[in-house]
Amino acid sequence: MFEGMDTPDVLAWRDGHIEALDQTALPHQVRVLRITTVDGLIQAITTLAVRGAPVLGAAGALGVALAVHQGHREGWDGTRLDAEVKRIADARPTAVNLRREVAAVAACIPQGRHAVEAAALAVVGFAVTASHQISRRGAAYLRDTCGGGRLRVHTHCNTGSLACLGWGTALGVIRALHADGALSHVIVDETRPLLQGARLTCWELGQLGIEHRLACDGAGPFLISQGLADAVVVGADRVAANGDVANKIGTYGLALAAHRAGIPFLVAAPESTLDEATPSGSAIPIEQRADAEVAVPAAPAGTRALNYAFDITPADLVTAVVTEKRLITRAARS
Amino acid sequence: MFEGMDTPDVLAWRDGHIEALDQTALPHQVRVLRITTVDGLIQAITTLAVRGAPVLGAAGALGVALAVHQGHREGWDGTRLDAEVKRIADARPTAVNLRREVAAVAACIPQGRHAVEAAALAVVGFAVTASHQISRRGAAYLRDTCGGGRLRVHTHCNTGSLACLGWGTALGVIRALHADGALSHVIVDETRPLLQGARLTCWELGQLGIEHRLACDGAGPFLISQGLADAVVVGADRVAANGDVANKIGTYGLALAAHRAGIPFLVAAPESTLDEATPSGSAIPIEQRADAEVAVPAAPAGTRALNYAFDITPADLVTAVVTEKRLITRAARS
Repeated sequence: MFEGMDTPDVLAWRDGHIEALDQTALPHQVRVLRITTVDGLIQAITTLAVRGAPVLGAAGALGVALAVHQGHREGWDGTRLDAEVKRIADARPTAVNLRREVAAVAACIPQGRHAVEAAALAVVGFAVTASHQISRRGAAYLRDTCGGGRLRVHTHCNTGSLACLGWGTALGVIRALHADGALSHVIVDETRPLLQGARLTCWELGQLGIEHRLACDGAGPFLISQGLADAVVVGADRVAANGDVANKIGTYGLALAAHRAGIPFLVAAPESTLDEATPSGSAIPIEQRADAEVAVPAAPAGTRALNYAFDITPADLVTAVVTEKRLITRAARS
Repeated sequence: MFEGMDTPDVLAWRDGHIEALDQTALPHQVRVLRITTVDGLIQAITTLAVRGAPVLGAAGALGVALAVHQGHREGWDGTRLDAEVKRIADARPTAVNLRREVAAVAACIPQGRHAVEAAALAVVGFAVTASHQISRRGAAYLRDTCGGGRLRVHTHCNTGSLACLGWGTALGVIRALHADGALSHVIVDETRPLLQGARLTCWELGQLGIEHRLACDGAGPFLISQGLADAVVVGADRVAANGDVANKIGTYGLALAAHRAGIPFLVAAPESTLDEATPSGSAIPIEQRADAEVAVPAAPAGTRALNYAFDITPADLVTAVVTEKRLITRAARS
């Protein structure tokens, strides 16, 4: 993951089971989960031990191989196997990558266990390659758009190796800017309620020696308004056909602020995130999670929450979407 | 504070010293601080045990009386007394109320201790009266503007009794709507980093039996975009001559979202918050607080933060400012 560093793989296939870095334990503990059953994988996904749209796609792909192995051990019939594969696809609703990669690998089930494993490993390998292509293309776009000088980049949630394998998506763009000597520093949102920015992005940036400052989510729009960022770069969980972007809750306010400040709002995501079957953001199901993520421990006991895990940024606020294949600008879309 | 409830006063003058509800201990503990020295008051203000722009004004007023008492006990000369009074005025930079009320009461020092006490108590009494006037006028404005039906109101930080005495400002408007049977429920931002929304506003709304839901700060703009609020109502720490509003960090994103959604963004604040001497928001000093408020305990040790305590909402995003004397609409201003 981090070349030359002694950290385990984010996600790996080991002889019939999955090993995954437990992202709920970071940054204070580096702990590896050994996942041998569909139940174990679904638990890892729903608790966000395994998370990030591209990693969810890869985990779903490996999950089909895992289900085939478990079915072989436990003597499942085809109906049971299909049902277990569907449970993996449904573990989280918003990111399209999960169900898409599950479906792609599941199509190989009739060809046998080895074909399924090969297809799943191809998904993982492709994610790494795509991440580098996204990173390089996104960095080149920002250098073109923002002019010379070292850029100050605002980002949200976690979109690095931990979320995407390889270099990441939005954090990959940042890493490519850094590699080019074109980065000043990164402003990282905490990303409540689960603090993926504070816990994971700060940890990754620290491992990489990239200068960064942590900000509360509510502060992001103001920092942008004060000219403290040259660009906003985020990932995506799904991009609808009209260009609306579903991403971690807290993204939309940054897009509003970037639009008003006249700085680029760049979405970095693999092609597998683009969902032509979803006409617009209003058709994307937004996961609502437990009250307790928001309400504890500060609030009075029993406080009810509104805990949407994602938000929708309308296409008119998105300057460009960069994928492993292309750059889709607002200008070209409209 | 809450009629018929057994809770202590937010702020009171008791025979030469100040009693204040320790707002850092809420909602889990109801604890009263006995403040007998200027040092003690400044500590209570900087740790946010005593907070909220109008309460800071009242605390500053009582602080002058406290300084006069302490000076009398300890034999201070006029120079020392002036210096101690100035320290109170400077304890926090953004809210104009603190330095304004300190100055108003300090002007009575030549008339003796009793005149100072009377002036300070008048400030406290006036804050309570003003809060009721603001609350009633703001509620009437929202009922006029949003049409019939029970309103869903989004608010930020804490602007109730705890911040303002009386009914509060923004939360006072909400309380007045509730009293009129014109409120559906309140959406409350957590208000990172110090969680005044989660800790204090949810506690006050619970005490008052007003239905509410807690949301992460980053979620606010999205919830507004989805039509989940009929209006946004916030307080203010300072309103510049051009109508720009300084308020708790996280306000600006809500204003952007309300503007795009076409719902009212109402600022409720006493006249003492209006600062004609400050031409625009860019001239308002924004307090920056310690990294540790943002960075612990989730982030890696040593993570640096950007921790602005307030933000500036440009006047063009503010639908109206309501005070104890008048309603200042954007339409009238432009």
